[in-house]
Amino acid sequence: MVQKLERIERVLERKGAIVNTYTDHIRMPDGKIAKWDYIEHVKGAAAVVAVLPNGKLVMVRQYRNALDRVTLEIPAGARDSVGEDTAICAKRELEEETGYSCGKIEKLLSLKSTVAFCNELIDVYLATDLMPGEQKLDEEEYIEIVECELADLCEKIYAGEIQDAKTVAGILAYANKYNVS
Amino acid sequence: MVQKLERIERVLERKGAIVNTYTDHIRMPDGKIAKWDYIEHVKGAAAVVAVLPNGKLVMVRQYRNALDRVTLEIPAGARDSVGEDTAICAKRELEEETGYSCGKIEKLLSLKSTVAFCNELIDVYLATDLMPGEQKLDEEEYIEIVECELADLCEKIYAGEIQDAKTVAGILAYANKYNVS
Repeated sequence: MVQKLERIERVLERKGAIVNTYTDHIRMPDGKIAKWDYIEHVKGAAAVVAVLPNGKLVMVRQYRNALDRVTLEIPAGARDSVGEDTAICAKRELEEETGYSCGKIEKLLSLKSTVAFCNELIDVYLATDLMPGEQKLDEEEYIEIVECELADLCEKIYAGEIQDAKTVAGILAYANKYNVS
Repeated sequence: MVQKLERIERVLERKGAIVNTYTDHIRMPDGKIAKWDYIEHVKGAAAVVAVLPNGKLVMVRQYRNALDRVTLEIPAGARDSVGEDTAICAKRELEEETGYSCGKIEKLLSLKSTVAFCNELIDVYLATDLMPGEQKLDEEEYIEIVECELADLCEKIYAGEIQDAKTVAGILAYANKYNVS
């Protein structure tokens, strides 16, 4: 049996805009105390693989400061509050970022983005029966919409051109679970 | 064309054991200055989908403090240094965590675990021609080895029982790219 480690203390080091930074004091099985980083993503997030009637996926291009480059991703965003149903969040983010509303939405995956030091949750949904509308971007969002063939996206994933973990996991889950290519 | 945002300043708030926390000052296209969180994962990491001659995958169970629970993951770990080849890192982590050395290793995916606020890179490899040996765990590692059928792992992914993003992406990439199930 794998042992649960005892956390003696969790010390808040900094409250951020979307994440808080802590030092955790952990008692190891040999009795020693280790200091580990813990990054708390406060709200959690949702993302959405949005499939058009022609089979193409609705993707977004945006500048990502943390990577210092433009990425191609599935639509996604943080919950309005910790208690928000991630399906509601996924529908809202799809609509805000791409203008598309969806008639049908179902859970594909629940992801923890990086388990070694962070609790961030990203629920990934599959949205179909899409109806076009107007983008409603947040003040800090500058996003371009791109419609892509699934086969092209899989190629980009294997070529290392798409690296965003939620996007890679979401697209491969859709391809694999529904046996589409 | 999506606009690159101008970062005016990056202020170090805390140096951690594996991640550093910064406040980035970003000039938005409308001229306003926004303060964004940036978490720097210093070393980057590698992970490995390790497939036995019988088709089973070598997985690890360990307690994850950030989630406060035991997870089932593909073997993985941070690079020894920023310049380390992730293939070397993947081989070493496989051997340290599971005892298995591999005759063949090839790149499956390059992941960025959570692009909204962090630069962490995780390269995911496929390892085959496995030869058993002894675990060589780091002082702070307590890990149990489990051999799993691919179909069972995919089921656990779709049931939300496996959520670790690198594990989900790696396993689905292996299933999808090599058309195995």
